[in-house]
Amino acid sequence: MSTVTPPAAVIAARLAALRAQLAHDGLAGFVVPLTDEHMSEYVGEYAQRLAWLTGFGGSAGSAAVLHARAAMFTDGRYTVQVRGQVPGELFEYQDVPATSAAQWLAEHALAGQRIGYDAWLHTRAWAAGTQTLLAAKGAELVAVTANPIDAVWRDRPAPSLAPIELHEDAYAGRSHADKRADVAAWLQARHADAVVIAALDSIAWLLNIRGRDVARTPVALAFVVVHADASVDLFTAPEKITAAVRAHLSAQVRIHARDQFEPTLRAMAGKAVVADPQSCVAAIFGALAAGGARISEARDPCVLPRAIKNPVEIAGTTAAHVRDGAALTRFLAWFDREAPRGGLDELNAAERLRQFRAETNSLEDLSFDTISAAGPNAALPHYRVSDDTNLPIGQDSIYLVDSGGQYRDGTTDVTRTLVVGTPTPEMQDRFTRVLKGHIALAQAIFPAGTRGVQLDALARQHLWQAGLDYAHGTGHGVGSYLSVHEGPQRIAAAWSAQPGGDEPLQPGMILSNEPGYYKQGAYGIRIENLVLVEQRDVPGAERAMMGFKALTLAPIDRRLVDVGLLTHDERAWWNDYHARVAAEIGPLLTDDADQAWLAQACASL
Amino acid sequence: MSTVTPPAAVIAARLAALRAQLAHDGLAGFVVPLTDEHMSEYVGEYAQRLAWLTGFGGSAGSAAVLHARAAMFTDGRYTVQVRGQVPGELFEYQDVPATSAAQWLAEHALAGQRIGYDAWLHTRAWAAGTQTLLAAKGAELVAVTANPIDAVWRDRPAPSLAPIELHEDAYAGRSHADKRADVAAWLQARHADAVVIAALDSIAWLLNIRGRDVARTPVALAFVVVHADASVDLFTAPEKITAAVRAHLSAQVRIHARDQFEPTLRAMAGKAVVADPQSCVAAIFGALAAGGARISEARDPCVLPRAIKNPVEIAGTTAAHVRDGAALTRFLAWFDREAPRGGLDELNAAERLRQFRAETNSLEDLSFDTISAAGPNAALPHYRVSDDTNLPIGQDSIYLVDSGGQYRDGTTDVTRTLVVGTPTPEMQDRFTRVLKGHIALAQAIFPAGTRGVQLDALARQHLWQAGLDYAHGTGHGVGSYLSVHEGPQRIAAAWSAQPGGDEPLQPGMILSNEPGYYKQGAYGIRIENLVLVEQRDVPGAERAMMGFKALTLAPIDRRLVDVGLLTHDERAWWNDYHARVAAEIGPLLTDDADQAWLAQACASL
Repeated sequence: MSTVTPPAAVIAARLAALRAQLAHDGLAGFVVPLTDEHMSEYVGEYAQRLAWLTGFGGSAGSAAVLHARAAMFTDGRYTVQVRGQVPGELFEYQDVPATSAAQWLAEHALAGQRIGYDAWLHTRAWAAGTQTLLAAKGAELVAVTANPIDAVWRDRPAPSLAPIELHEDAYAGRSHADKRADVAAWLQARHADAVVIAALDSIAWLLNIRGRDVARTPVALAFVVVHADASVDLFTAPEKITAAVRAHLSAQVRIHARDQFEPTLRAMAGKAVVADPQSCVAAIFGALAAGGARISEARDPCVLPRAIKNPVEIAGTTAAHVRDGAALTRFLAWFDREAPRGGLDELNAAERLRQFRAETNSLEDLSFDTISAAGPNAALPHYRVSDDTNLPIGQDSIYLVDSGGQYRDGTTDVTRTLVVGTPTPEMQDRFTRVLKGHIALAQAIFPAGTRGVQLDALARQHLWQAGLDYAHGTGHGVGSYLSVHEGPQRIAAAWSAQPGGDEPLQPGMILSNEPGYYKQGAYGIRIENLVLVEQRDVPGAERAMMGFKALTLAPIDRRLVDVGLLTHDERAWWNDYHARVAAEIGPLLTDDADQAWLAQACASL
Repeated sequence: MSTVTPPAAVIAARLAALRAQLAHDGLAGFVVPLTDEHMSEYVGEYAQRLAWLTGFGGSAGSAAVLHARAAMFTDGRYTVQVRGQVPGELFEYQDVPATSAAQWLAEHALAGQRIGYDAWLHTRAWAAGTQTLLAAKGAELVAVTANPIDAVWRDRPAPSLAPIELHEDAYAGRSHADKRADVAAWLQARHADAVVIAALDSIAWLLNIRGRDVARTPVALAFVVVHADASVDLFTAPEKITAAVRAHLSAQVRIHARDQFEPTLRAMAGKAVVADPQSCVAAIFGALAAGGARISEARDPCVLPRAIKNPVEIAGTTAAHVRDGAALTRFLAWFDREAPRGGLDELNAAERLRQFRAETNSLEDLSFDTISAAGPNAALPHYRVSDDTNLPIGQDSIYLVDSGGQYRDGTTDVTRTLVVGTPTPEMQDRFTRVLKGHIALAQAIFPAGTRGVQLDALARQHLWQAGLDYAHGTGHGVGSYLSVHEGPQRIAAAWSAQPGGDEPLQPGMILSNEPGYYKQGAYGIRIENLVLVEQRDVPGAERAMMGFKALTLAPIDRRLVDVGLLTHDERAWWNDYHARVAAEIGPLLTDDADQAWLAQACASL
């Protein structure tokens, strides 16, 4: 997606065109989410309707348009950014969760008005809730037959036709025949005939395929129906299917054009069909219902086995993290040499880091746009550098870099906070509190059945003692050469906007451990490692226990630590971790200066 | 409630009589819960139908009866007890939550059968869920017009007619006029005409009345309807109303016989009536619906203000805890003198403790049946001593006593674990891990909005490190001269059987802090203080923060502490807490030996 924000006049023209189209379609309003037909978090260019209409470049938000007014809905992460990108004279700024597009529409819609929505871009629950709100005003929510934005977005990109790629069993650890058999057994146990899979990462996991249709996430645009006989109907653009893919998929996977998906759903009369209301949009349920299928709701059966990595995937991500850690370590050593000389800025530092990763010769893509943030920019947890915001990396300041790579054997995501020159005592105090929280979570031992929400406070407790906190979750799931944000598990409040805090953790799950601290207008701190949930043999244990093993291997900046605030156990964790970093990363460094830098960075504290 | 278990032949005769009644009523089965018309946790003798039918004396369970088989449903707390009290040849033992009465009935009911339930003893959600399960088998759930147990329970006690007592404003801190006005404002804001209040502690709180109808909990049997004009209809036995109560309640509270409640609900045609589906039984919703009321569901508006104690209530409970702490301290000193001589057992120790509390001259009742547990009995977290189970308190063992009092100014609940002779190193290790968890929770500082589920792991973390845990929540709410288990807040997993772990904590709430450790067949440990949630001024804080203040004041047994396992901060907490105990309890001790005992018990660690 372009990081160039269109001028307000362009936005105004687009909004006017949409309103004209709505009038033509007999609609009083329309709601514009930021997702695609798969309820994806990151979407292809063709689905960037919100960015096109409003100029908003964040990763979460929505807009609602009426004839006389329009509004933009974002959460606390984007309070600043939305004002810089979306013209306030065209769109009111509204905060989520204080309000929502649905509530705002219900507030401003008039009796008898018809408000449109695209049933391919919303869940059934959203449509039902919004319909109820509008009905209270005498207005009506109606599904459009064609998205009115697409009618007026003249140069809208077509969905990507990038070829589907194979994800070898050597990376996946299990054949798609095995996985399909498991889903079939799951269907049989439910006395169901078929399940509709719409989540792109589930489809990629199930069929051991990958794609290049969405930036940063190696998925292919497709829908799947899995049947109780373990056969699959795959709906995707025919251009994406190579001979190798066809051979890989075997006769058990029947390939259809994407436009055959909806007719197929409508032809399932009498079949017992399962669909996940979180990832299957309202249009899917609508087509099944219209066709007379017997619908039941259940979580996508790929979600949990995708999250619980098998031994081959664990070996893969472990190798990817060593490789990625060596690249990051080269960057850290380079940064320490270069930053004091001046001349570094957020953009050129991020580009140099990308080069170090590319020099591994196995980088497929970044796993997300690098957060390269100096000074006050680092106080924005979801900052993304652009030409407009690029800051030099100054002396006596701290620099935050949150980045990751997509490798065939694993997906990485790591944050380090670095000092240039001398930190203030406050920076050291805050950094050390964040570190103590990171260590408390890293060292936690917990019984089977524990959910992330129960562990979240371990990472926050030392900030809380000082009256401080951070306004984001502590940990998210991560895929295997898939999404860098992957469900179902999270370490976060279970009642936050993002689900997963109440999902039981299980051995084989990958999570981030990323407490932080953000001082508005001044600086930001975050320490992030990915960790693997593993069983722990505790001598004398009366219960099955679990713990975290760090996957990420790269030095944490010792110059920011107030060692006097660490307990003996915390220092022991630091020394053990850095001994591991030195032992596993050291052999991959070919440059003497890098090796010397690593040795001092990993010396005992 | 009697602690004497009836012989199996008596139970068999009762079960046969019930089955005959069911046949007479045209029912194939019946379900027997342990609650009353108010969904109370503790119920009066008249409502002890489960104990009468089965012999079960625990505080949570249910039974289901069919003509050829019957089953008893209890959770893990009562696995042992149920086998000792309920004849296995008459009732199958079934574990909750692995199954439930509803699931078991659906499994065994036959097509066409009618299974009865008493709509005054179940929630609407339970009835709907059970109906769905039975319908899948072609069976039907039907509400009985009269409870068939009542027809065959010849000497069933009548509901208590104990007079209602006043709860003076000097204890309540607010007049019932104030409270009624708040509920009226809440109704007006919802555009509702009235709210039905069925929870006995809500009624007691709202009208500043108390009662003696249920052991250990000072509530009066009644129902209430509050109207938007702040007037109240109170339904209760006329015998319970004294002239003083009538004067106290004022003309704004109209008093009706209890049997007028249902007709009144049926006469609310067209009114917008609110009811809480957690505390209003299915029969209440049924009567409102039959009468044509416009029903909406919401949490009982008394729940939150009842939980958030006002300054007068806080001063009251603080005073009650000092008084109760002095009585407990006298017991602890006495115990240390007597136990080494032998001759103490669970029953006489509990009785001596009751006497010390009674000698305060302000004890209204115990707040629950004292858990006085020696050796392996202490490994049962909800153990209640009886003649059958009474154990001597042995040498070189630990003794657990969990007890509390009902005083006009507050309700107490405290657990201490005491050593007689020399503890084993394992006992010391476990005790110290429990203590470290108790201290971690006691010292926690957390931001506004934090829920109990987020803090629960703080109390468990040191046990978890050793592969240990405890199978109960860490904290429950406590009333002001009301229920010792009071919602809505809890410190526990939010998905456990008891709700409340996801309720935001607020200043003024009272909670217990009671981690434990239980070694089956050997011993049990629990350290419980009640704590008050209060705002905390943290220097430099960027957010509104809260913390806990200990209300309970009594020494913790220092002989069980492995001091080497405590951090500097933990020792500081211990010393500060015991300095407070010495300063506040010492002046209330009139006996020199008790004073000397307290001084050594509270010396710095």
